[in-house]
Amino acid sequence: MAKNVGILAVDIYFPPTFVQQEALEAHDGASKGKYTIGLGQDCMAFCTEVEDVISMSLTAVTSLLDKYNIDPKQIGRLEVGSETVIDKSKSIKTFLMQIFEKFGNTDIEGVDSTNACYGGTAALFNCVNWVESSSWDGRYGLVVCTDSAVYAEGPARPTGGAAAIAILVGPDAPIAFESKFRGSHMSHAYDFYKPNLASEYPVVDGKLSQTCYLMALDSCYKHFCAKYEKFEGKQFSISDAEYFVFHSPYNKLVQKSFARLVFNDFVRNASSIDETAKEKLALFSNLSGDESYQNRDLEKVSQQVAKPLYDAKVKPTTLIPKQVGNMYTASLYAAFASLLHSKHTELAGKRVTLFSYGSGLTATMFSLRLHEGQHPFSLSNIASVMNVAGKLKARHELPPEKFVDIMKLMEHRYGAKDFVTSKDCSLLAPGTYYLTEVDSLYRRFYAQKAVGNTVENGLLANGH
Amino acid sequence: MAKNVGILAVDIYFPPTFVQQEALEAHDGASKGKYTIGLGQDCMAFCTEVEDVISMSLTAVTSLLDKYNIDPKQIGRLEVGSETVIDKSKSIKTFLMQIFEKFGNTDIEGVDSTNACYGGTAALFNCVNWVESSSWDGRYGLVVCTDSAVYAEGPARPTGGAAAIAILVGPDAPIAFESKFRGSHMSHAYDFYKPNLASEYPVVDGKLSQTCYLMALDSCYKHFCAKYEKFEGKQFSISDAEYFVFHSPYNKLVQKSFARLVFNDFVRNASSIDETAKEKLALFSNLSGDESYQNRDLEKVSQQVAKPLYDAKVKPTTLIPKQVGNMYTASLYAAFASLLHSKHTELAGKRVTLFSYGSGLTATMFSLRLHEGQHPFSLSNIASVMNVAGKLKARHELPPEKFVDIMKLMEHRYGAKDFVTSKDCSLLAPGTYYLTEVDSLYRRFYAQKAVGNTVENGLLANGH
Repeated sequence: MAKNVGILAVDIYFPPTFVQQEALEAHDGASKGKYTIGLGQDCMAFCTEVEDVISMSLTAVTSLLDKYNIDPKQIGRLEVGSETVIDKSKSIKTFLMQIFEKFGNTDIEGVDSTNACYGGTAALFNCVNWVESSSWDGRYGLVVCTDSAVYAEGPARPTGGAAAIAILVGPDAPIAFESKFRGSHMSHAYDFYKPNLASEYPVVDGKLSQTCYLMALDSCYKHFCAKYEKFEGKQFSISDAEYFVFHSPYNKLVQKSFARLVFNDFVRNASSIDETAKEKLALFSNLSGDESYQNRDLEKVSQQVAKPLYDAKVKPTTLIPKQVGNMYTASLYAAFASLLHSKHTELAGKRVTLFSYGSGLTATMFSLRLHEGQHPFSLSNIASVMNVAGKLKARHELPPEKFVDIMKLMEHRYGAKDFVTSKDCSLLAPGTYYLTEVDSLYRRFYAQKAVGNTVENGLLANGH
Repeated sequence: MAKNVGILAVDIYFPPTFVQQEALEAHDGASKGKYTIGLGQDCMAFCTEVEDVISMSLTAVTSLLDKYNIDPKQIGRLEVGSETVIDKSKSIKTFLMQIFEKFGNTDIEGVDSTNACYGGTAALFNCVNWVESSSWDGRYGLVVCTDSAVYAEGPARPTGGAAAIAILVGPDAPIAFESKFRGSHMSHAYDFYKPNLASEYPVVDGKLSQTCYLMALDSCYKHFCAKYEKFEGKQFSISDAEYFVFHSPYNKLVQKSFARLVFNDFVRNASSIDETAKEKLALFSNLSGDESYQNRDLEKVSQQVAKPLYDAKVKPTTLIPKQVGNMYTASLYAAFASLLHSKHTELAGKRVTLFSYGSGLTATMFSLRLHEGQHPFSLSNIASVMNVAGKLKARHELPPEKFVDIMKLMEHRYGAKDFVTSKDCSLLAPGTYYLTEVDSLYRRFYAQKAVGNTVENGLLANGH
């Protein structure tokens, strides 16, 4: 069996267009700090009419192949995680096949995985399992998480965002899975769902969704700890991982989630909790599970107790989610990319614990072990290729009024046919794909913005 | 690594309500034989207002667990393949978690896999790979294919159907994967897709879809043969598998597909083609690929040449697809179930080759090796549990007028909220789940028809 299977390479793309949450607060007439402190968010990226989940994933995949110098024929599996449905039958993966067909490679397994923000994790697990299975043919796996998170006007609107991440999977990886340490919690819930098929917007019960998230976190942590103890013969505590990465719909929930793990460690009497913390949390030791999810004092005290550990173990994971917003399936991996960006070579030898959550609901806590790796698949090169700081710096801030106008246009465009876009790619970086047309049969056409003096690809034809 | 991983058990469910294709021909004013000979179909099953892909999958899963006496706690992975979207974010898998939560099992990996009729195959491959991977925890995998195929009035309408299949996956299986022999072909095409999000009906280009199917078949067979030759050191021909099972949107395409494999073997100068056949096919040896897909004479002659082999190697796989219709993701596995039904213990020691196709497009040819197995996971018990003949016999024929009325009602119900169904389960077998209500928040409620004198489960609550 292939050894140390995991993540060899990563690239991330997010739209260059964004609003400041502070400006959005003022525009929406929300109280000052509601989005920036209440949600903990700084900016929100969004697709304009020339971008969507297909164009973003075309951009992320071509960029990864190019920057790590991967021959498209060397991809043997390609899977997409997304909850942004453009077609109910035809997968996003088949759109991405255009990249590989040009090189004569059509023998690529994998389709799209779907359950809210969890689809990317499912796709990643599937790819890792494939490399470890007897059906592996020696080639790379490629996972793409791509989503555009948009909400109707109202309290959920500032929790949007958009991005695509491409992740190359194979053996001897600098970011290897510790697959034995894994705990899942899956259950039937209506916390966030998309039953209104004609609308891009979800139905959200924000309060329920937060409780579902924290309950799933508790359950996954319990299973995760049990597996760790089974295989390692000792108790797991938050001291046993250097960093914790969470699915990040908004930063405040990440703060609450880590505090919840600290509270779990307190209840489990784990070694990570010192005497001062024990004293502060003792007040809450008799709360029932349900009570503990609703108790504001516990929330406050546990966050206070967790603060130093949060700053050390979680804060380095928060840059992109705070700057870009919720990226649904890409959100967890954008948080992980933030960690790679901020710590890169320092991560060698370290364990990172990740928590993936998708409403509805599906959740898993899992573990990665990092090594520096060999160029081009090294932590330092991944950080360099992703160029997170450069991409953030090159963005264009748009005023809230413009954002609202674009959302209105996108509402009309969602599910529509027979239109051409502005084809305005002036704000996009060279090499970025963009939507040019949806014809009378709903067929979608994309082009790639020229790189330097050469026009790459030109128009991407449809499948005929 | 776990050995002989594959299919341990199968159960199939299809609605008890159907129309005769002959009656539908007359009702539609189509020429006599258009549906029965032209498409090769006998009957078409359909969901009434109390059934959908969720209820069918609840029925199939509970039936499988019950009939093979599987403890719900012994399921460690559950994946669904479907292209019938009821919610764009919340997976069908999360609805099925209701069955397992009752038993305290929420640690079950897996979500939904999506690409037209191929999602079930993706889910099956994922489950098999999981059992072979380092993340396997020793429990069973469970794959569910569930779809309702419905078309707008017009030529595609008689190619509908509906079913759910549940497949238990684990090591030491009577139906083991030969994973090294596998060829995929994936490409960007618009042959059949569902871009009109508010409608349940697809956009279909029937002629293009048939050509896409046959081109994908050629490509997969080429890859499959290359892998076989690489590992076995000899040429593969259709003589090397006892049976061939095809994705079956309608039987005529299955006839054409097998004839296409015979033509491939002729072109490859394979041992399966005798001198008489060679003479008959020689006329077509200089056709280009594109010409060969359109050539009616080749189609006719190759089907004629293939007939004796078709009767031996394919016909035993056609019962359920001809009687039930296109079941999308379940279609290939319903064809395989037909083979298990008709040949059961005779299949021990035999190789079966399967071809899975999903428009858009994704396709794979793969190989299974069968053994009698140990009760309850034996070929004879699987055939007995599925009770295909009994289920077909217990169905209720409805007149075309009634079918059309139900289609009209379902058009209004698709994506709708705030209604109760008739709750009429008089035509359903005991133990069948049915839809009772969709509330004002689109939340769906199901009940299970009583088995004997006991009411099992009663109403299934939503996730609150």
